[in-house]
Amino acid sequence: MSSSGAAAGRGDRTEQPPMRDALIAAAFRLFTERGYEQTTVDDIVALAGVGRRSFFRYFPTKEDVVFPDHERCLADMTAFLAASPDDAEPVTRVCDAARLVLRMYAENPSFSVQRYRLTKQVPGLRAYELSVVWHYERALARYLRERFAGHPDGSLRADVIAAAVVAAHNNTLRSWLRSPDRGDAEAALDHALAQVREAFGTVAIPPSRALPEDVVVVVSRRDAPLWRVVRELESARGHG
Amino acid sequence: MSSSGAAAGRGDRTEQPPMRDALIAAAFRLFTERGYEQTTVDDIVALAGVGRRSFFRYFPTKEDVVFPDHERCLADMTAFLAASPDDAEPVTRVCDAARLVLRMYAENPSFSVQRYRLTKQVPGLRAYELSVVWHYERALARYLRERFAGHPDGSLRADVIAAAVVAAHNNTLRSWLRSPDRGDAEAALDHALAQVREAFGTVAIPPSRALPEDVVVVVSRRDAPLWRVVRELESARGHG
Repeated sequence: MSSSGAAAGRGDRTEQPPMRDALIAAAFRLFTERGYEQTTVDDIVALAGVGRRSFFRYFPTKEDVVFPDHERCLADMTAFLAASPDDAEPVTRVCDAARLVLRMYAENPSFSVQRYRLTKQVPGLRAYELSVVWHYERALARYLRERFAGHPDGSLRADVIAAAVVAAHNNTLRSWLRSPDRGDAEAALDHALAQVREAFGTVAIPPSRALPEDVVVVVSRRDAPLWRVVRELESARGHG
Repeated sequence: MSSSGAAAGRGDRTEQPPMRDALIAAAFRLFTERGYEQTTVDDIVALAGVGRRSFFRYFPTKEDVVFPDHERCLADMTAFLAASPDDAEPVTRVCDAARLVLRMYAENPSFSVQRYRLTKQVPGLRAYELSVVWHYERALARYLRERFAGHPDGSLRADVIAAAVVAAHNNTLRSWLRSPDRGDAEAALDHALAQVREAFGTVAIPPSRALPEDVVVVVSRRDAPLWRVVRELESARGHG
């Protein structure tokens, strides 16, 4: 059992009790061999060699053993956001928070891929996962709402940015889970989040307010006469 | 019973069979009076004066009677997107699709507010609602993925924009459900979606590719020496 991907990969998380790890490994071995629905909690505890009460001490339901790291990860993310410096750029900060979640998946690829395949097959687990994702999204949105408090449309902007960050994360994660050997998940996430930051870094603030008053933008055709562009530039600078 | 908000508001949807409407009205009356968990399907059919089999003909589970319009609305949205003209601007199109969902809520305010209060109280219904929202989001993303096929990061952009549109919709919807008398839901949604369109209308395409090759953009501080800005401008135009 300790040779399964789940147990092997989890061994380096020293803060997790060995019995909990043994239950996760037993559960995933049975889910893979027999199917999720066909495996009972009794089967899991028998294979792990512990009593039923030990299972329920760690996992309130059978579904919870499929997502054993999410509670800790959500707590880590919430703590990370709560510890944000006051001058942290909020969109960058929630992007960094999303990286924590990807790292949880990436630090244990074989377990993550097993779970991904299982979740796709079992509608109940899919529903559980939606609720997990919703909790991450709300944690990001709560932080952004605080940071945007007092801004016009602050809660709207917070919700939209949180959803965009989660969608970028999930798009990257799913691509990686489908072919984990094909590339570096964290680099792919950086790329995806850069696009979200591009969209919201400035444009989430309506364009009329997006630029400080002392910045001038001139857009012109490359082949426009230079004198005409300079005149436009002078006019925009207030010397026209 | 026909005087309840649910039944009264639904009477004008002629395509819905009266028995289905009677079941919905009976269910919501009991959910409100006794609570959702305390109401059985037997209670509902007894109040509606029909047999159990009639209930299950319309609603596979008790949860489904809480969201009686979503299947039709999802079908309407899917049909609307499938009927999109080839030259429709994709982000505008998914915003218009989101308006269909809001209209479903807005055309029956008392029913929508009852359901909102119920869903907040019952975790199982909250999970059901997340799955409903996920289906809408996937329908929008599927359409966008087709439209962005072949673009670099097409699926990423599709997923992020779909999530942003859904978040803007849900933010507006929740504000309205909390105080439905305070304003026009559709106008509020227009305002929210305008911000999403602003963020993604152009910036979803990375800036380096967003502009035709013959356009030059120069950003400068207003108080920068003019000669330096002109030199930068010349350099950007390819004469530097």
